[in-house]
Amino acid sequence: MDIKRTNRGVCIDNFKASGAREGGYGVALIVNDEVCESAGVFTRNSVKAAPLEITQERVEGGLQALIINSGCANACVKGGVGDANRMCEIAAGQVGVNKEYVGVASTGIIGRRLDLTKIRDLTIKASRFLSNSEEGSKLAAGAIMTTDTKIKELSFEYKGIKIGGIAKGVGMIAPDLATMLCFISTNADLSRNKLQGALSKAVDKSFNTLVVDGDMSTNDMVLLMSNRRRRCSPQDFQHLLDYTTKEFAKLMAADGEGATKLIEVEVRGARSNKDASKGARAIISSPLVKTAIHGENPNWGRITAALGSVINLRFEKISIIFGSEGRKVTAVKEGRVGNLGKVREVLRSKEIQITVDLNSGKGKAGAIGCDLGPEYVKINAEYN
Amino acid sequence: MDIKRTNRGVCIDNFKASGAREGGYGVALIVNDEVCESAGVFTRNSVKAAPLEITQERVEGGLQALIINSGCANACVKGGVGDANRMCEIAAGQVGVNKEYVGVASTGIIGRRLDLTKIRDLTIKASRFLSNSEEGSKLAAGAIMTTDTKIKELSFEYKGIKIGGIAKGVGMIAPDLATMLCFISTNADLSRNKLQGALSKAVDKSFNTLVVDGDMSTNDMVLLMSNRRRRCSPQDFQHLLDYTTKEFAKLMAADGEGATKLIEVEVRGARSNKDASKGARAIISSPLVKTAIHGENPNWGRITAALGSVINLRFEKISIIFGSEGRKVTAVKEGRVGNLGKVREVLRSKEIQITVDLNSGKGKAGAIGCDLGPEYVKINAEYN
Repeated sequence: MDIKRTNRGVCIDNFKASGAREGGYGVALIVNDEVCESAGVFTRNSVKAAPLEITQERVEGGLQALIINSGCANACVKGGVGDANRMCEIAAGQVGVNKEYVGVASTGIIGRRLDLTKIRDLTIKASRFLSNSEEGSKLAAGAIMTTDTKIKELSFEYKGIKIGGIAKGVGMIAPDLATMLCFISTNADLSRNKLQGALSKAVDKSFNTLVVDGDMSTNDMVLLMSNRRRRCSPQDFQHLLDYTTKEFAKLMAADGEGATKLIEVEVRGARSNKDASKGARAIISSPLVKTAIHGENPNWGRITAALGSVINLRFEKISIIFGSEGRKVTAVKEGRVGNLGKVREVLRSKEIQITVDLNSGKGKAGAIGCDLGPEYVKINAEYN
Repeated sequence: MDIKRTNRGVCIDNFKASGAREGGYGVALIVNDEVCESAGVFTRNSVKAAPLEITQERVEGGLQALIINSGCANACVKGGVGDANRMCEIAAGQVGVNKEYVGVASTGIIGRRLDLTKIRDLTIKASRFLSNSEEGSKLAAGAIMTTDTKIKELSFEYKGIKIGGIAKGVGMIAPDLATMLCFISTNADLSRNKLQGALSKAVDKSFNTLVVDGDMSTNDMVLLMSNRRRRCSPQDFQHLLDYTTKEFAKLMAADGEGATKLIEVEVRGARSNKDASKGARAIISSPLVKTAIHGENPNWGRITAALGSVINLRFEKISIIFGSEGRKVTAVKEGRVGNLGKVREVLRSKEIQITVDLNSGKGKAGAIGCDLGPEYVKINAEYN
């Protein structure tokens, strides 16, 4: 049985959503009729935004509604926790939910006080359009965008298990969950512990392998809410959740600030999985590799240098294969350089796979990222 | 007594130099009348270019001449060690030195076989102009440039100790000595062990704190040759060598690919020097910080996020001060944001100092880097 794509976004089953934007702010709401079993993964940055303090605690008791704003990160500011709490109260009042079951998240500029008048106006507006429909999900996904150029929502079904979600994130994306938010709904009837375990695993294999520029944000979170309507095996749920989070990670990488190409790296044949992981991250993080891919330049030398800077390797053993759209071209085979003209053709594609075989063991790991183009610099020099 | 700047480049005392360029290749020569006591620091990349294998061994027995080429890295290629050895023979023949005392270095594209005909022609040409003069040093410094926009040579005198040098390096510069070459001459009468110890220390405090894009090259080396004509204390020599290598590091950072501003970061008040060093490197490596400085944007939030991603900190304790040309402006004082308009003025300068005080201990460390502008991407997408 295959994973089937559906078109509900975060509004699977009985989940409702909505959103509104105005004057540099956006507010999204996600609501269920009942308190949902919940799990969360939060930034490992030691500087955490105020909303995380609240949501991190509440997630254990279950969540019924989420309020998320864009435009202000509510981080590094006095009174931030009080403001985040006030946001929950506003949402609770508008959607008729006990505020103890309201989670909150923010994204935007660090160090500015939240404008609660704007938050209240947008929450009232958004709550009017709350609906259990794809439109509701799209409104919510649109409201949380910052430098995103595309709204990000996905939903899938597998053996009766449904998973949906919305996300935002393009820049500052690094292995430890950087400025990215992802809100996932499901019907999987699993305990909180099982949901949390599954989410942590899925995040590790998806968002944590994602590198756009190596920075880590104060606001990142991934939340999972389940209405527990569908009995399922933890394995089947993990399978679907892994797939969903990986697809979200790809959407983010492809929408990386100024990105024109999605890059997937696989390092195999390493002495250990850890070595492979270090190598894959070094390649996907290297600005020299990223700019070369942007220029459609088959620069295997930069890939080798990036790898060699983090793990021990012998060039005579390395093979480097470039792929796209099912086509694979060997650039280097055990230290001998192949037909780079053919690699250039592959690099014209929008989705590039780079596979490096170290021929030294069974270790294997992947990483997801994007190219580095002049637009990235432009966006980040001016974003304010 | 102060360090005095002189204008000899690498040609202090009896050191001669020369260089020639043609058809994408350059060759530089540095020669002394006698075998010099020598020391070296080499890349920590596990993939090492062929010339390093030869020079790393010979440095222990002393060096009398150096041949350095640009245009081809002589790395990741079959027969590379033989070619590097042949380069030494060519130099030895032209300048009349035993080839066992000839060191060799290369910079340029990885994975291509060295063109020995070009090397020979340029070596013959360069050797004709070999001279003990600033012009000789400039020819040599010019011949080893790749994407450098400026030639890099410096010389200083302190208590009778002379130090001179030439260098190249702009991109791929990372804490562990990336694509950079630096050749230093001195008259300090110190043993090989003392020279090596002093060089390792100086490199640690200068080139190893230098970050342009976080990549590490297969070819980096710093070599020191001494004619031992001047008695001196190891402390005085260290003082002058530290100063010289730090000035070279600044020249490189200011000439970073596409760089428009030199950035010096100091983190102090950390729990340990190690914490301070991690923090300083995180700040100077952050593409978001680098692009903000490029845009003259006083984004202290990105500095905080970069720090928080590598060390534990409390925002209420942090102070962030921006400086330039002797002026200092506090952007954040123990968690309270100050006058950012004044910070903007400071950021218009070409040389920016960022000081972060964590107010949590006595740990202190610095790092040197540059801003990230659209030119970096252009150069690296097209460099081939």
